[in-house]
Amino acid sequence: MTASSQSLQPISPLLIARKLASEFAETAAERDQQGGTPKAQRDALRRSGLLALSIPREYGGLGASWSEALEIVREFARVDSSIAHVYGFQHLMLATVRLFSRPEQWQPWFEQTARKNWFWGNALNPLDTRTVARRCDGWREFSGRKSFCSGSADSEMLIASGLDESNGGKLLIAAIPSGRTGITLHGDWDNMGQRQTDSGSVTFERVRVEENELLLDPGPLSTPFACLRPLLAQLTFVNLFLGLAEGAFHEARQYTLKETRPWFKSAAAFATEDPYILRHYGEFWVGLESVRLLANRANELFDEAWSKQEGLGARERGELALAIATAKVAATRAGLDLTSRLFDVTGARATHGALRLDRFWRNLRTQSLHDPLDYKLHELGDWALNESLPTPTFYS
Amino acid sequence: MTASSQSLQPISPLLIARKLASEFAETAAERDQQGGTPKAQRDALRRSGLLALSIPREYGGLGASWSEALEIVREFARVDSSIAHVYGFQHLMLATVRLFSRPEQWQPWFEQTARKNWFWGNALNPLDTRTVARRCDGWREFSGRKSFCSGSADSEMLIASGLDESNGGKLLIAAIPSGRTGITLHGDWDNMGQRQTDSGSVTFERVRVEENELLLDPGPLSTPFACLRPLLAQLTFVNLFLGLAEGAFHEARQYTLKETRPWFKSAAAFATEDPYILRHYGEFWVGLESVRLLANRANELFDEAWSKQEGLGARERGELALAIATAKVAATRAGLDLTSRLFDVTGARATHGALRLDRFWRNLRTQSLHDPLDYKLHELGDWALNESLPTPTFYS
Amino acid sequence: MTASSQSLQPISPLLIARKLASEFAETAAERDQQGGTPKAQRDALRRSGLLALSIPREYGGLGASWSEALEIVREFARVDSSIAHVYGFQHLMLATVRLFSRPEQWQPWFEQTARKNWFWGNALNPLDTRTVARRCDGWREFSGRKSFCSGSADSEMLIASGLDESNGGKLLIAAIPSGRTGITLHGDWDNMGQRQTDSGSVTFERVRVEENELLLDPGPLSTPFACLRPLLAQLTFVNLFLGLAEGAFHEARQYTLKETRPWFKSAAAFATEDPYILRHYGEFWVGLESVRLLANRANELFDEAWSKQEGLGARERGELALAIATAKVAATRAGLDLTSRLFDVTGARATHGALRLDRFWRNLRTQSLHDPLDYKLHELGDWALNESLPTPTFYS
Amino acid sequence: MTASSQSLQPISPLLIARKLASEFAETAAERDQQGGTPKAQRDALRRSGLLALSIPREYGGLGASWSEALEIVREFARVDSSIAHVYGFQHLMLATVRLFSRPEQWQPWFEQTARKNWFWGNALNPLDTRTVARRCDGWREFSGRKSFCSGSADSEMLIASGLDESNGGKLLIAAIPSGRTGITLHGDWDNMGQRQTDSGSVTFERVRVEENELLLDPGPLSTPFACLRPLLAQLTFVNLFLGLAEGAFHEARQYTLKETRPWFKSAAAFATEDPYILRHYGEFWVGLESVRLLANRANELFDEAWSKQEGLGARERGELALAIATAKVAATRAGLDLTSRLFDVTGARATHGALRLDRFWRNLRTQSLHDPLDYKLHELGDWALNESLPTPTFYS
Repeated sequence: MTASSQSLQPISPLLIARKLASEFAETAAERDQQGGTPKAQRDALRRSGLLALSIPREYGGLGASWSEALEIVREFARVDSSIAHVYGFQHLMLATVRLFSRPEQWQPWFEQTARKNWFWGNALNPLDTRTVARRCDGWREFSGRKSFCSGSADSEMLIASGLDESNGGKLLIAAIPSGRTGITLHGDWDNMGQRQTDSGSVTFERVRVEENELLLDPGPLSTPFACLRPLLAQLTFVNLFLGLAEGAFHEARQYTLKETRPWFKSAAAFATEDPYILRHYGEFWVGLESVRLLANRANELFDEAWSKQEGLGARERGELALAIATAKVAATRAGLDLTSRLFDVTGARATHGALRLDRFWRNLRTQSLHDPLDYKLHELGDWALNESLPTPTFYS
Repeated sequence: MTASSQSLQPISPLLIARKLASEFAETAAERDQQGGTPKAQRDALRRSGLLALSIPREYGGLGASWSEALEIVREFARVDSSIAHVYGFQHLMLATVRLFSRPEQWQPWFEQTARKNWFWGNALNPLDTRTVARRCDGWREFSGRKSFCSGSADSEMLIASGLDESNGGKLLIAAIPSGRTGITLHGDWDNMGQRQTDSGSVTFERVRVEENELLLDPGPLSTPFACLRPLLAQLTFVNLFLGLAEGAFHEARQYTLKETRPWFKSAAAFATEDPYILRHYGEFWVGLESVRLLANRANELFDEAWSKQEGLGARERGELALAIATAKVAATRAGLDLTSRLFDVTGARATHGALRLDRFWRNLRTQSLHDPLDYKLHELGDWALNESLPTPTFYS
Repeated sequence: MTASSQSLQPISPLLIARKLASEFAETAAERDQQGGTPKAQRDALRRSGLLALSIPREYGGLGASWSEALEIVREFARVDSSIAHVYGFQHLMLATVRLFSRPEQWQPWFEQTARKNWFWGNALNPLDTRTVARRCDGWREFSGRKSFCSGSADSEMLIASGLDESNGGKLLIAAIPSGRTGITLHGDWDNMGQRQTDSGSVTFERVRVEENELLLDPGPLSTPFACLRPLLAQLTFVNLFLGLAEGAFHEARQYTLKETRPWFKSAAAFATEDPYILRHYGEFWVGLESVRLLANRANELFDEAWSKQEGLGARERGELALAIATAKVAATRAGLDLTSRLFDVTGARATHGALRLDRFWRNLRTQSLHDPLDYKLHELGDWALNESLPTPTFYS
Repeated sequence: MTASSQSLQPISPLLIARKLASEFAETAAERDQQGGTPKAQRDALRRSGLLALSIPREYGGLGASWSEALEIVREFARVDSSIAHVYGFQHLMLATVRLFSRPEQWQPWFEQTARKNWFWGNALNPLDTRTVARRCDGWREFSGRKSFCSGSADSEMLIASGLDESNGGKLLIAAIPSGRTGITLHGDWDNMGQRQTDSGSVTFERVRVEENELLLDPGPLSTPFACLRPLLAQLTFVNLFLGLAEGAFHEARQYTLKETRPWFKSAAAFATEDPYILRHYGEFWVGLESVRLLANRANELFDEAWSKQEGLGARERGELALAIATAKVAATRAGLDLTSRLFDVTGARATHGALRLDRFWRNLRTQSLHDPLDYKLHELGDWALNESLPTPTFYS
């Protein structure tokens, strides 16, 4: 941790995050337009010490619970869901090494991350089969391409995956320095939403990966505890979607209060008294409150499950998966509704380009496609009807 | 409490309620058809001791918290929402005397209710202005008519209201024996749902009401604590709607599991694997889970507010009102959706008359009209947009 | 045609239907409660001559187009969807013999139906495999059971189906007198909706079916023209659902206009000016208008397709199937919404039992389960995405 | 009309429009990014002769009916809803002078427009009260500001409005050359959608408006026929929204067919067979078909009403208003649903920036705020419940 962040130590991480969020907010609309890497904001995150938030204190981190970490994802998402995404994935990557590798591996990575404020990027994508790992004499050689590598730009470490040629295409996951020879980050992310997540493609050209960089023991999805990894990814999205919706609500509300005039056919003297505008807000509220409770419960259950470590059972892990999936469906739907309908409570002038109020919908619409909502409902239905728990995969 | 119920004492009220509920379930469909007063079930409730559930132990009751009482309302509603209604209103009536009258008044009523297993009925309806109270020498004379008097048949006590002629039509509320001279219960409830709630009309013909039967001190809606009364009514509906929806879900699920065959165009071998049936169940699950969390939170907040007694502040009472209103909107919507859509997951044969699976929709549709959902949304919108807390009334 | 109906001849069939409908309306709520066979109404239909509506004039019928016939189904459905169902199925049964049998078969049936005002009932159910046909010497023997035999009670003729034992279970369809030896109508229809359709079960005990009663040439679903039969069934439902929704709208409107009072929190002096009540009506209107246009188009396309007789091509038949499926999805959804939400614009008193306003939802909910909406959407999606026309079956 | 467009004369306007649309499509995504004035496309429209589409042949135009003109708006909207907007407004402006001014005024404007391929822009906004008209000696002086002046850039003529200082603020409308001294087009439209409509602000600094440029006889909304003007505006939106939704459907479909892979949990081998993807397409189809019928009916009724000229009655005009409002509500809702949900049938890769598939939602969301949907529903409800026809205004 740097000197400046140490001086912040007595301040709670949430307060630090709020301060950062208020700074990020000032430029969020502009940076949404620019896209690319939010370098200044990433450096502010480095300086803040928050990159070590989820790292236990014994390894130099802030020792936050997952609930606390996810609350900060939510906080960032209220103003900038791109930063919330890469920040959330920072901790997801740390959880990945924690869950899939041996203590001798993850402990030094934790320590170095905390000490040097490393940013971790994501080049793990189990459905993208284009990267293969060739077995060499004491190391593996990763070659191929990957897309959707969020947070890989400006990162110190990467979680990368490849299919093991010598083992029937089994998924191999490694933690490697982002700057290793053979890795090219293409910086080609220019999508309609989540524009500053650097979720572009990466090429591996005969990248040497040492054995002790491979996350083999216990390995991916090997135990119920290791299977918390995909659940943390899904839960990060839940908090991201909720924060994003809360941010959209906040912006809409400010706009209605300050700018919106009642329609000339309204009996109300002020837009804030128009019955239809109030009805929309009432519906926003019901949606947000439902998601808040579902998300909070899922966060708490995640903390509980994590605390059981390898004692976690498959059934408890399965029930957590259901709580998270339920929250995700609700967050996606309430969020898409709110981010589109917010214009009905603000009016035509709120489409002004500089406001970029459409970014909430664009961000949520983009991120909500990570894995199909239709199959989350399918999974929940299989539970509700057949009492079948979700089969652990990288998406469930 | 009777001998038989005393022997049940070591058993928890919830277990007693479950046993009763399983008995009620056997005849619920048939009794839905009959309508009228569920005399046998009411007597079973009397014998069970559960009519004194919410009465503190010091007055001979079971001393349950409101959360516990509402959980039992929910339990009954899963199988019979008429009984759940009158049972919930039993405790609402007890809360009414507790909140609106002096200890010298409500304490004996509590004691007698616990000792004699009195049932309380509801003839309080602030929007029905047809009953007037004339001031006489030391008493009042109530004359007029009231409709929607749930649970008045087969009751020992009634909460009745009238407009005070001598005081500008101010609402007067009284607790009086149901059998008093001049009271006629018309037994004319024959509506499409909630058919065994006895919510018919009552006529008062020069009914003598003593001063000490009037709930004047502190009187209706006089303090934030007294203003919990309408919130308990609303919260009773929340739990009723949720239980009802859970009951419908349970019936639908049993039917799909045991009876439903896949449509001949389905790729699935069993209805339980049909993608569209699973999707419906997934959506039911998201709806139910949301409502469960919203209802549980509202129940807990109600307990907290109640425990503050006269120390309860207007703001805390207002926030509780919002939590309840939010839960009520969600419960109504999820419930109406589920009780109508359940037939899509069971199929045409589930419309068989003897099953009376339509009763869930009929019951929810009927009870959900107690006060308009549109104005609950309005109220929530006024909070969400303007941070205006709901004004206490008999409906908010 | 009887003397009395001949005297009505100068009056258009639609006017006759309207007069009958206004009579049916008077007892519709009461008969919904009773269930059973609406004998008086069926006899009034017999006397009216409308049982021969779709029979060409050359065979003694009224020579109405299908659009005209379906308009009358809609007219009846506005007040009594049970009668609308059996009346629509009368013409569906006539179309069945017309499309599946030889002129030497259907012409006499048409003539006798027109002359004797025969009612035709439906014991055809291709998914119910319990009735088998054994080949005898010059006849077939039908044995087994069938459910959902709408309109079979009080009918003169039945369309019945069985699986041909001697031909790999091929579907055989026959037209036989309802009173033939061995046929037992169980009169066991007592379902939650469509309560006077007599859709109970029928037992066939070694029922002798002559060769010339079998509809073998061209046989079921044999040509695009013959494949109009299931489309007429579906289109009958479209018009039934629309009429039913229009009837519900009419009842709701009358109630709001005459009975409903504004909620005490409404700024409106009259319920008819309440912004939320108006919004519901606005949404009802959009739903009804959409369905009206979709239904009218489907009716017109059906007339066109019918007029091509055996010249009808598979593609044109397929496009008609899509138009009908689209209308059916829209009619089902708009109808379920309106019949449930109508109570939001009428209020709690509209649940009064004598009004039986819930019958609209019960009737639509019951009839809309004939075949799953989910698979209609599937079919439409296969067209929209893949340009695959629906494969003709008894449901598409 | 230019030589090149004359040579196209034997080709139907619709074919010309389709050819232009296919050209516009090539650059639509790119131009959505750029914003600003689509100069090349506007010039292509000038050359095509289509600016005179709605002008009767006797004045040198193509003499198209309104249905034909609106069909071309729809055609353009499928690929570029900005161009569709300004093209539709071209004809709305021509209708404005036709309906509000004397033949001696509009006839020359029609002739010149047809001969010189004038583009007309819109600076009429009755709710924007910042522009006032001062009465001078034989002319008026317009001073003030207006926003939302669609199509004003690169136009030859403007329809402008101001409030008459000398006549209680009565609305004055004028047709004036866009280049007149004192008019400044700010080119400041940079909104989230409809980005090439040039809907920025205009300043009038003591702009001289001659008496014969004022549209005073019969004047705005003076007769039922003159009241067709706002209905044409609304109907233009209906066709714009429908075309836009059809364009989004087309793009989604191409993407699903060519690019989308089934989710790894899907039982389907191809995305085109996935049950949930098919369901979405089925729902898109139902939505689009409903809107197509509603829009076509409204277009036809508009033609009929127009053909009655000053013989048009208030009731017929009112019923037309209802048909248009109904279509607009349905088009807005189906369109917002489809343009957001299209990503569920394409998947995450379809958010790629270069595709700009979000533009359909952004365009529809922006344009659908012209006037609130909530008050269209209110209006329809007032008809459905109270049989009150909409009061003519500039929005109804």
